[in-house]
Amino acid sequence: MNGFTRTTSPVITLTTDFGWRDGYVGTMKGVILSLNPSAIIVDITHDVEPQNIEEGGFLFAASASYFPSNTIHVVVVDPGVGSERRAIAIQVGQSFFVAPDNGVLTQAIAALRSGTEDAQVQAVHLNRPEYWLPRVSATFHGRDLFAPVAAHLSLGVPLQALGEPISDWIQLARATAAFRTRDGIVGHVIHIDGAGNIVTDIGEKLLVGTNRARVTVRIAGRTIRGIKTTFADVGPGEMLAFIGSSGTLEIAVREGNAAERLGIRTGAQVDLTLDTE
Amino acid sequence: MNGFTRTTSPVITLTTDFGWRDGYVGTMKGVILSLNPSAIIVDITHDVEPQNIEEGGFLFAASASYFPSNTIHVVVVDPGVGSERRAIAIQVGQSFFVAPDNGVLTQAIAALRSGTEDAQVQAVHLNRPEYWLPRVSATFHGRDLFAPVAAHLSLGVPLQALGEPISDWIQLARATAAFRTRDGIVGHVIHIDGAGNIVTDIGEKLLVGTNRARVTVRIAGRTIRGIKTTFADVGPGEMLAFIGSSGTLEIAVREGNAAERLGIRTGAQVDLTLDTE
Amino acid sequence: MNGFTRTTSPVITLTTDFGWRDGYVGTMKGVILSLNPSAIIVDITHDVEPQNIEEGGFLFAASASYFPSNTIHVVVVDPGVGSERRAIAIQVGQSFFVAPDNGVLTQAIAALRSGTEDAQVQAVHLNRPEYWLPRVSATFHGRDLFAPVAAHLSLGVPLQALGEPISDWIQLARATAAFRTRDGIVGHVIHIDGAGNIVTDIGEKLLVGTNRARVTVRIAGRTIRGIKTTFADVGPGEMLAFIGSSGTLEIAVREGNAAERLGIRTGAQVDLTLDTE
Repeated sequence: MNGFTRTTSPVITLTTDFGWRDGYVGTMKGVILSLNPSAIIVDITHDVEPQNIEEGGFLFAASASYFPSNTIHVVVVDPGVGSERRAIAIQVGQSFFVAPDNGVLTQAIAALRSGTEDAQVQAVHLNRPEYWLPRVSATFHGRDLFAPVAAHLSLGVPLQALGEPISDWIQLARATAAFRTRDGIVGHVIHIDGAGNIVTDIGEKLLVGTNRARVTVRIAGRTIRGIKTTFADVGPGEMLAFIGSSGTLEIAVREGNAAERLGIRTGAQVDLTLDTE
Repeated sequence: MNGFTRTTSPVITLTTDFGWRDGYVGTMKGVILSLNPSAIIVDITHDVEPQNIEEGGFLFAASASYFPSNTIHVVVVDPGVGSERRAIAIQVGQSFFVAPDNGVLTQAIAALRSGTEDAQVQAVHLNRPEYWLPRVSATFHGRDLFAPVAAHLSLGVPLQALGEPISDWIQLARATAAFRTRDGIVGHVIHIDGAGNIVTDIGEKLLVGTNRARVTVRIAGRTIRGIKTTFADVGPGEMLAFIGSSGTLEIAVREGNAAERLGIRTGAQVDLTLDTE
Repeated sequence: MNGFTRTTSPVITLTTDFGWRDGYVGTMKGVILSLNPSAIIVDITHDVEPQNIEEGGFLFAASASYFPSNTIHVVVVDPGVGSERRAIAIQVGQSFFVAPDNGVLTQAIAALRSGTEDAQVQAVHLNRPEYWLPRVSATFHGRDLFAPVAAHLSLGVPLQALGEPISDWIQLARATAAFRTRDGIVGHVIHIDGAGNIVTDIGEKLLVGTNRARVTVRIAGRTIRGIKTTFADVGPGEMLAFIGSSGTLEIAVREGNAAERLGIRTGAQVDLTLDTE
């Protein structure tokens, strides 16, 4: 049991596919504040493509590491709500995660573990109804289960009190993870951002030792030469590849919308040729 | 006069049809924090269909009861701004409501009163300009009147100080409220949520004593047999009826968009046949 | 050096063109809370038209003056990110601004100075990396530079510590600012709000001494007679001109969408004839 003392108000983040229109997110905040009026609640996003676990996991992971130690992260992208899928909570070092057990935490936890090799990981199956709302609906566990569990964590309830320890929580197979080939890299589009920038899963580490100016990027039948540093390296309306703010390769159009121009969607393949000549 | 002492920072919720684009909501928060820097402000939604009082009232009511005691709720769906319509504040037990007097609070207050039968209800006509901004525009009372009134309430100003007591505040006639017929129930669509789920006004109480498996739902010329518990009870792409998280009948498509498939809009009729055979 | 003592938690506002979908704004909040867990963060808007400096400056200025003294305003509409454009911070009286040096603060600072003639203005070029994140990307200075600088300001770091004093920060030429002609006023559309209301740059002051009932407004080949007070002054579906909540002329349709009806966009010209007969 590793309880701990908090010296500042705890931060709880929310990532969902609920959208902003329906009051669902506001309701979750009401539940949290009813249990812990001192909680500081921050929205990461609520516009994950409905039930897209991989995209939700990517968007969450890109943001999570920027929050303070002791933050409690709630991630509800939950196509299996009401079925037998488990609800879980995981502690990695001093970060906490509350989510359905469907792999949505895969990328965030992998990033956290690669950053602090010796971080201790503990997980529990959330099966103690005394930490939920008295009545749990079949369709809105964000309100009835995940929000109250996060609030109890923020009040100092130790992870172990919330359910049975488990070690078999689901991790995404990452079928689409980028990989090196003999003379290049094969990756995929994992997100189109609001400006139409195309985000891939090709991490900067795969490019170590490469002459970036001589990389060729192929996407949607189009060829882009070289990996630039930023938008200003090309003229207005020109397409470029660069390492985005999440540390992976992105394709964009300066002052334009790359996804629209290429007619591309999440899941599309991206091929890099590394001219080592 | 029932002043009271608050022991934690007060919560103020905001529900409007202002949208998120224009900075109007941020401006209201600036006004509140200028008067009470300790206020905790929570958005319920700002995407109420413009000037749709009934939808705004529904979305607000579905969320309001999940907030702590002493919360101050501001609801600005206000087609009559700048006209002679009154601005009002209502206290029900230890919950506070600030809104235009157009019926937008009807559902929330009805829900609150049915939950706590003996809750005392007091209402005032907000006619004391000393609790408003010095200059009140003709078009943005959210900023100039409702936000400062909520801030003063959060500072402990008693309701009665804010205006003349009234008892004739407007309640929606609920013309579209669901009702029992000889062999069924007639209701209406009151909201389409962001996922395309169709929310009706047919409350769970109307179904007491009914065999849910034998209910027939008719909507937009389509028939659905049985009321299920959750999405997992049908296959992907199949339509189902179930009791949603707000306690009313909803129609949805698993991993799909029911409103698009049925081409349905708010206000459409829904008929249930209760086969009591 | 004018350090100061804060007696309440400091407010930090965020205005960007990042949208709400991608988690970029949540990430900025994580950075701020990691440095100052007591910061109160308020969104003004994140839906500025991508890279539209003038619109961002307008939306921000309309909201900024409603925040408490000592508020720190972060404005990131930044088409030049990664180029040689400077990052700056400006203090006007007891208000603080952090932004790229591209003119996006022009309207807000002009408004503040016109309100308090003798407000002292100090500006610095943000060139001290010890107040940034350890690693600064080429494309996301909102996260890596502006957010941490704002957090340090909120902790009481004086403006002068953050960089070299400058006096040549960029102000928009305001080429589109409205002006008087011999018998009228020429202005432009600077914003279409979420309800389709058309906001112009024709400030109320230009109309001093005018008989508003006899003004003629010409926009998109259409003529509107008279400046009304509010929507209720015309019938449903009718078009009207009025002074909006930001103090400038707006054109709207009661219970309708004026921008759609006129097919109008930001930048369009608006002509007023002041019939002084």
